[in-house]
Amino acid sequence: MLHLMRTNIALAARRFTGVATPQIKEEVSKLLELKAQLGDENVGSQKLLLKTPKGTRDYNPEQMALRLSAMDKIVAIFRKHGAETIDTPIFELKEVLTGKYGEDSKLIYDLKDQGGEILALRYDLTVPFARYLAMNKITNIKRYHIAKVYRRDNPAMTKGRYREFYQCDFDIAGQYDPMLPDSECLRIIYEALKSLNLGPFTIKVNHRCLLDGIFATCGVPQEKFRSICSAVDKLDKSPWEEVKKEMVEEKGLDEKIADRIGTYVSKSGGRDLVEELRKDADLLKQPSAVEGINSMELLLKYCEIFKIMDNLVFDLSLARGLDYYTGVIFEAVLTGDNIGVGSVAGGGRYDNLVGMFDPKNKNVPCVGMSLGIERIFSVLETSIANRGMKTRTTEVQVFVATAQKNLHEERMLILAELWEANIKAEQSYKKSPKLLAQLQHCEEYGIPLAIIVGEGELKRGEVTLRNVKTREEASIPRANLVEELKKKLDTFDLSAVH
Amino acid sequence: MLHLMRTNIALAARRFTGVATPQIKEEVSKLLELKAQLGDENVGSQKLLLKTPKGTRDYNPEQMALRLSAMDKIVAIFRKHGAETIDTPIFELKEVLTGKYGEDSKLIYDLKDQGGEILALRYDLTVPFARYLAMNKITNIKRYHIAKVYRRDNPAMTKGRYREFYQCDFDIAGQYDPMLPDSECLRIIYEALKSLNLGPFTIKVNHRCLLDGIFATCGVPQEKFRSICSAVDKLDKSPWEEVKKEMVEEKGLDEKIADRIGTYVSKSGGRDLVEELRKDADLLKQPSAVEGINSMELLLKYCEIFKIMDNLVFDLSLARGLDYYTGVIFEAVLTGDNIGVGSVAGGGRYDNLVGMFDPKNKNVPCVGMSLGIERIFSVLETSIANRGMKTRTTEVQVFVATAQKNLHEERMLILAELWEANIKAEQSYKKSPKLLAQLQHCEEYGIPLAIIVGEGELKRGEVTLRNVKTREEASIPRANLVEELKKKLDTFDLSAVH
Repeated sequence: MLHLMRTNIALAARRFTGVATPQIKEEVSKLLELKAQLGDENVGSQKLLLKTPKGTRDYNPEQMALRLSAMDKIVAIFRKHGAETIDTPIFELKEVLTGKYGEDSKLIYDLKDQGGEILALRYDLTVPFARYLAMNKITNIKRYHIAKVYRRDNPAMTKGRYREFYQCDFDIAGQYDPMLPDSECLRIIYEALKSLNLGPFTIKVNHRCLLDGIFATCGVPQEKFRSICSAVDKLDKSPWEEVKKEMVEEKGLDEKIADRIGTYVSKSGGRDLVEELRKDADLLKQPSAVEGINSMELLLKYCEIFKIMDNLVFDLSLARGLDYYTGVIFEAVLTGDNIGVGSVAGGGRYDNLVGMFDPKNKNVPCVGMSLGIERIFSVLETSIANRGMKTRTTEVQVFVATAQKNLHEERMLILAELWEANIKAEQSYKKSPKLLAQLQHCEEYGIPLAIIVGEGELKRGEVTLRNVKTREEASIPRANLVEELKKKLDTFDLSAVH
Repeated sequence: MLHLMRTNIALAARRFTGVATPQIKEEVSKLLELKAQLGDENVGSQKLLLKTPKGTRDYNPEQMALRLSAMDKIVAIFRKHGAETIDTPIFELKEVLTGKYGEDSKLIYDLKDQGGEILALRYDLTVPFARYLAMNKITNIKRYHIAKVYRRDNPAMTKGRYREFYQCDFDIAGQYDPMLPDSECLRIIYEALKSLNLGPFTIKVNHRCLLDGIFATCGVPQEKFRSICSAVDKLDKSPWEEVKKEMVEEKGLDEKIADRIGTYVSKSGGRDLVEELRKDADLLKQPSAVEGINSMELLLKYCEIFKIMDNLVFDLSLARGLDYYTGVIFEAVLTGDNIGVGSVAGGGRYDNLVGMFDPKNKNVPCVGMSLGIERIFSVLETSIANRGMKTRTTEVQVFVATAQKNLHEERMLILAELWEANIKAEQSYKKSPKLLAQLQHCEEYGIPLAIIVGEGELKRGEVTLRNVKTREEASIPRANLVEELKKKLDTFDLSAVH
């Protein structure tokens, strides 16, 4: 509406200037003043329209090609592990989201009340998943879900923080034996990060019960567990001194208690750390610590069987922000060239979330993980750019070109044959395009082969087959075109980058 | 909040009933009255939460598997024709959508004004595409876009009309020679419908200019072209007599004019119809009719080259609802068992839409089509159900089972090997599951092979390989497991239905 107002004022101003009596001039200047007050440089044009909403973006063909190829790899891993997929609406009843995200609830996008239900855009995929399980009384499922979620956060687009972004979740729900699903989640993170070629990485693992046990051992009052846990969570970004300061000064923790926590959360290792903790008599007095240690021992044993211990660290400083975790927690970080990007996967066990939706609070134990797919995308984009490569945006194998005018019907006859034979092929939509333009198109799009149709060749029953990269050309019989092409295509590496 | 209030009142009421002094009883009855005023049967339970918003639904694993396999086929066709893909945000600035959908604008979902921009959920994929082209000054692109769109329509879920649904669009934008992109769109519809195995179908084609020419010839006043066009559009669902009645009684058209229209719109054919129209001296007086006839002649010639004439009808009754079409229009319908489902594809040329977003009204000519993917899904679902088939929801090739207790670590060792070899495999997450339950899982999910691990076999260095369907079993050496499995898997048809 404001925009329309601006346009109208500008139009009126223009109309008035044509006549220009003193009175009109005065009116015009008043209008121009009003226009200036509206404070926009684009008044009178439609430029205002030409943007995406704050914190969102379009994905162009190159970005989409990269995203789809990364998602394909991830989905292939999920499917290798027998996952099904589901989808849920982009919005939920507002009540479904209420009370699940603590103070982050202010970041939820609400829909306008247009009569009827009060709705909000989903904030993650986990809460809709829990709602889905409770609603359909599903007690076990192994599912992945890749979709967009919405957060009215302060966008930092240079850091890859958007208001609309993909999440990529895998979860196992069901009442099972300890650590069997949990260890498979870790194996999946391992396989996914390997298959994406992101360089070296480490998966940190810890257990919420162990953390609780440590806090109790150190003398943290029960009511401060959560806030101290969220302070520990900052250890991946801040040095211990700062975290300690937060504990003592902001959260009122006794300094000695903080120091005791400090000696614990600096520890990391493998099964040796389990042994060390087993010798800690104070710790063993806390049932929750014992539970955590036993669980970690079992988990690490399973991870050894799954051959992922080289990439795993049992890290007592890992805390994870979300409130709903109840058991194992984990987080993966890149450790090579991309060490600064933050975590690229994370998750844990949340046994009580589904119960929040069930009329009888019946729980379905869950463990799951989310790949930080937007961060993974930026790492891949940078890596492709650094290597001077380009992502192919189409899969065209053969471009059908002409060297002379008005041979488009010959091209179309060939195309119909190629398409029928399932060969990916295209042409220019101009009747008489320039040969150079056609070949440039092939180079730009990484199309490996071109068929060049010419009058002379056609009379001889031939067409020219050109290798776009090497520029080699050869005559092949028009009648055997499909056969010859298929042979030739088998020799190409039709990968997604070129 | 209302919901919480109800819960609290109900809880309070229950607590009070336990003590039951007269005064409390009175309080209770007041509370129960309040509760009744709130008018909900589910007071006290959380059942309210357990639904998706009106007109939306979750897609369960079976529905998703079917959708993904259909989408894969469609995407493969789009890619065979060299299409790129893009994505745009789920919401747009409200202004982008304003003035594009006529009276259907009331069906747009608005977001709540939470400070900042005024946003609305996208209503289709075409307007965001036009905005994308104008915003990025793109003058030519061939792209597909499969994504969800939102309409606050009166949902008729039994008829497959939802408020959130997929659209599946392919468009060619650019200044090209007549009918070259248009005919390829028709070829793509042809290929897509063939590859989806939907049975026999017909693609109806017509031209907006020809319709305008016919209206002019018959004497329809210029200002009634649109409304008469939208009456003609109903001929696929209503008999001529009804459509005529609408023209005459509702739209005030002279009966004689309506009858003249009737003689035209009853015509359909192929290139013969072009010849017939060429002999109509009255019609040829209208430049727009001549343009339409010439275009159709060229289009049909190209469609012959593309070998799709067997499925094409030049149908003068095809009008298409949308205002923005400027040239060729088309629509595909199923003609076999699924004759009643309505159109499964539609589209046309829209040369002026992008200009609505350009500050200088610079146009980018476009032609494109949308597959009626939700209808296609229902046809496929019905067809699978009718054949007594089930859609596989996972791709698991091998289930690793145990016949005895506590062999889960042996299973996990095998799984790690299989996953490493890229074999899709899973197990029960229970340490000692029953063999019968494991085999039932295989049958339920259509998993073709099971490896059964037993103590005796392991001692002999063997495992049992079981064909789930035939129940045949064979011992294979544990050491050659991967190799043997790969050989065996090559002999299976791992299709998506079973």
